[in-house]
Amino acid sequence: MPPVVTLLSDFGTTDGYVGEIKGVLLSQVPDALVVDVTHDVPAHDVESGRLALARYWRRFPAGTVHLAVVDPGVGSSRAALAVESDGRFLVGPDNGLLSPALLLGAARVVELTVPAQAAPTFHGRDVFAPAAAALLLGTPLEALGHPYLAPVLRRTPEAHRRADGAILGEVITVDRFGNAITNCLGMRGGSIEVGGHTLAIARTYADAAPGALVALCGSTGLIEVALRDGSAATHLGLARGAPVVYRPAR
Amino acid sequence: MPPVVTLLSDFGTTDGYVGEIKGVLLSQVPDALVVDVTHDVPAHDVESGRLALARYWRRFPAGTVHLAVVDPGVGSSRAALAVESDGRFLVGPDNGLLSPALLLGAARVVELTVPAQAAPTFHGRDVFAPAAAALLLGTPLEALGHPYLAPVLRRTPEAHRRADGAILGEVITVDRFGNAITNCLGMRGGSIEVGGHTLAIARTYADAAPGALVALCGSTGLIEVALRDGSAATHLGLARGAPVVYRPAR
Amino acid sequence: MPPVVTLLSDFGTTDGYVGEIKGVLLSQVPDALVVDVTHDVPAHDVESGRLALARYWRRFPAGTVHLAVVDPGVGSSRAALAVESDGRFLVGPDNGLLSPALLLGAARVVELTVPAQAAPTFHGRDVFAPAAAALLLGTPLEALGHPYLAPVLRRTPEAHRRADGAILGEVITVDRFGNAITNCLGMRGGSIEVGGHTLAIARTYADAAPGALVALCGSTGLIEVALRDGSAATHLGLARGAPVVYRPAR
Repeated sequence: MPPVVTLLSDFGTTDGYVGEIKGVLLSQVPDALVVDVTHDVPAHDVESGRLALARYWRRFPAGTVHLAVVDPGVGSSRAALAVESDGRFLVGPDNGLLSPALLLGAARVVELTVPAQAAPTFHGRDVFAPAAAALLLGTPLEALGHPYLAPVLRRTPEAHRRADGAILGEVITVDRFGNAITNCLGMRGGSIEVGGHTLAIARTYADAAPGALVALCGSTGLIEVALRDGSAATHLGLARGAPVVYRPAR
Repeated sequence: MPPVVTLLSDFGTTDGYVGEIKGVLLSQVPDALVVDVTHDVPAHDVESGRLALARYWRRFPAGTVHLAVVDPGVGSSRAALAVESDGRFLVGPDNGLLSPALLLGAARVVELTVPAQAAPTFHGRDVFAPAAAALLLGTPLEALGHPYLAPVLRRTPEAHRRADGAILGEVITVDRFGNAITNCLGMRGGSIEVGGHTLAIARTYADAAPGALVALCGSTGLIEVALRDGSAATHLGLARGAPVVYRPAR
Repeated sequence: MPPVVTLLSDFGTTDGYVGEIKGVLLSQVPDALVVDVTHDVPAHDVESGRLALARYWRRFPAGTVHLAVVDPGVGSSRAALAVESDGRFLVGPDNGLLSPALLLGAARVVELTVPAQAAPTFHGRDVFAPAAAALLLGTPLEALGHPYLAPVLRRTPEAHRRADGAILGEVITVDRFGNAITNCLGMRGGSIEVGGHTLAIARTYADAAPGALVALCGSTGLIEVALRDGSAATHLGLARGAPVVYRPAR
């Protein structure tokens, strides 16, 4: 089976930075399957990258190497990491981006040695891609650096249950469709208050009439708010952090 | 030869949805060649996806699996389809998106069985990707579901010939360059009326002076209108449905 | 090792043009590794494509074929080229796009024969992709066309040294982060005047306080100007051609 490496970044593709990274990977591992996840993470938005990574990293086969670079602190004293977690490998900066894998109990983490000649502005090319290549070639994690005990962890904000059973949550991200995804784990039934509206929790987008708002339990189990044929976030003025109140069905 | 699966969607890449789909595919078919066509179809724009699919689906080798998901009706009663047509396979929703392949006479169509645990908001991950993986692994089409006799068909609007020989057509799409592509099959010579201008049908974009409008016969045989070094659609205020009159050369 | 072909274009992905190109490549070379560099070059911006290509083309292994199409003159009398340079192959239009490879002394260049049936508006599909496929299959460069002696060359504008030792340069591109990249080869220390500010040359982006401007020596050795957590180009009103004065450290 060819070794698989996935790429997530905020580099865009236009400038050729991602081309450089792919060239490094294929020069060192000519049979690698290089899989783009995204290069369109908003610039420097570690939180957005973290939420995307949480979605996909365990969907790939064991042995996959995930290269993830959203790295406003590149070249500073922040550590460069390689991680093994649940049979997958990850490389990226120590800023919380890799938290979904780090938060599993048995994750092993090393701090990558930064070569003296690495450009301090482009660790994606000079530190992370070579580390990913080494892992694809079977180099043991521990050969890439020293154990690292206290990586930065980012967590999705927790929703809280009120005495009356309602869940106080918030919007954690807005997706490409303008769906506002909350931190409330839910199920069909019950209702949510958001942006001055109270919406019953439906099953899928098409349960709403065209132009109508709908709330439902999305594909990771979190309650989200959508607008049929439009953007709920734009319509309701919702952004990350907007408060919601979810009332589960009895 | 490695099995090839292409992806077309309106998911964007930022949120990680496409990453999930790729993870499902590679977990089930580790040697698959996963080929991105696009994830930038405008949200819910089935017609745009259909026109793109029409361009490429037969350019790929026989045996290719095309996964195409622009699916505003996900989770509703619309069927999920798998298709075999001209030696290629396609999976996607029954909303007309797959029409270019369905309109060939010998197309075979089945309605996919939707697993009970499939998220009603993300059939791309839970229905279409597993079906594509099964096809890549050689599962017969008929093993994936029951024959489906009346899929939704979308067709490009037809141009009509007037008594005087002129062709009444319309703009069917505007491409990334702002070129307005019409439904008039044509050839060099003759002229087209569009947005208050009458343009001779030239051979290529560079036949126009910088800043000038030009009409020509594009790479699928359809007459299109371009602006040298700019957007004809913006310049002339053209969108899908804008009327044109094409007068072929005598 | 599978044959590698990279793609750079200004086609976007939405319209399916890139899908057509990938289909042609995989039909002719079923085991090709097709690697996207970018399809988001601004429409017709040969200079932007050239600068990206300069970054990545030699990072790929020897034998790689780079397909690069930013081609406002498609179908005109401009030549279609195939190039061998430093062990890599390139195909694309003769408009300066391929200059980074052409400027190496030992580059070999042929003018591709354009098939009679090639669409004059889409040489990417009908001329360049077939030529790339032939090269991937091992066809000798010289079998693809006649030697071509005077390709169009584009060069990055040169910076000039004043009598007082200061370097007069300019911004050559603005990247996705809003970093303004100049044509001044530099190193840490010294300073740069740009947009009415004088900035010391620092080591990396994080050397600046949030919201502050910073200049540094980027990953190709060129001085660039950044804004911590923002766009220097927007903040300072910088675009391609904006003048700078770089004063190296003594």
